[in-house]
Amino acid sequence: MNNSPAVQDFYPEDFSHCRGCGRLNPQGHQFKTRRDGDETVTHYTPAPHETAVPGFVYGGLIAALVDCHAMATASAAALEASGVEIGEAPSPRFVTASLKVDFMKPTPIGVVLEARGRVRERSDRKAIVEITVTVEGVVTARGEVVAVAMPATMIRA
Amino acid sequence: MNNSPAVQDFYPEDFSHCRGCGRLNPQGHQFKTRRDGDETVTHYTPAPHETAVPGFVYGGLIAALVDCHAMATASAAALEASGVEIGEAPSPRFVTASLKVDFMKPTPIGVVLEARGRVRERSDRKAIVEITVTVEGVVTARGEVVAVAMPATMIRA
Repeated sequence: MNNSPAVQDFYPEDFSHCRGCGRLNPQGHQFKTRRDGDETVTHYTPAPHETAVPGFVYGGLIAALVDCHAMATASAAALEASGVEIGEAPSPRFVTASLKVDFMKPTPIGVVLEARGRVRERSDRKAIVEITVTVEGVVTARGEVVAVAMPATMIRA
Repeated sequence: MNNSPAVQDFYPEDFSHCRGCGRLNPQGHQFKTRRDGDETVTHYTPAPHETAVPGFVYGGLIAALVDCHAMATASAAALEASGVEIGEAPSPRFVTASLKVDFMKPTPIGVVLEARGRVRERSDRKAIVEITVTVEGVVTARGEVVAVAMPATMIRA
C-alpha cells in the first residue's frame, strides 16, 4: 500500500513551486499524495514550530495539508478517468475554489499526520474532494474541498 | 485608523507560540490584528516562497491568515463585550472549530494583503466571524470561521 508514485512529483515544472506540495519549493512542506486503493494518502510530520498552542498542531498547517492533498486527489482522479496511472503523464494541476475544514479535536504535535482523500463527485473541470486527517487512529479534522482545473489566467507566459 | 494595539500582543504568554500569529514564534507569520472602527484588520505581505503557482499567493497561507485573524476578531469582540479595550487585559484565546475559505480570484504575490474581520454573531463561548482578503482593492478570498473559547483540554499543566 501507499506505494504509487506521488502526484506532485509529476506536476509540470512551472507548477511545482507550491508552498505546500511543490517539489521545487525548498522552503515548502513538500506534501506527497499517493494512491492507496480507492483513496489517496499523504503522511506528514509537522515541524515543532508548526504549533497552535503548545502540544498541538497549527490549524493553518492542517488546512494547508487538506488543501494540497485535495488538489492532488482531484489530479489523481482526472488521471484515472483518462486511464493513465500516476507518473505515466504529467499530473494535471487543480486550484482551490473552496476549502472547508472542521476541526473535530485538537491535533497533537510530534507524531505523523495521515490525510486521506476521496472524490465525492467530479466532472472534467471540477471535483469535490473529502479529506480526513487522522493521528494515531483518531480523526482530528475533516475537510471538504472544491477543486477546479487551473484557469488559463493563472498561467504566466 | 488601524492604530489600536494588536490583539495577539496580549495573548497570555503560554498561548503566544502560534505559527500564524504568536509573538513568541520566531518562525511564525506574526500576524497582527487591530481594531479599525467596527471591523478588525490585519496587513501582511507574504514572503516570495509563499506561492501556489508562480505569481500567486499560496491558498494555505490565505487560509492561515483568515484563521488567525478570525480568532483575534473573536477575542476583540469578547473584550469589547466586557467593556475592555485591547491591551487593557489579556486577550482571551479562541480556537477554530470550523474554517471555510472561498477563493474568488487568484491572489497576486508581492503586494500587501488586507484581511478584514467582522463578527456576525457571538455568545460567551462562540463567535461566527466573516473575513475578507483584499489586494489592491480587489477581494480575492472570503472566509467564514467558527471560533470557540479555548477548551480546558488544550491547556497543559
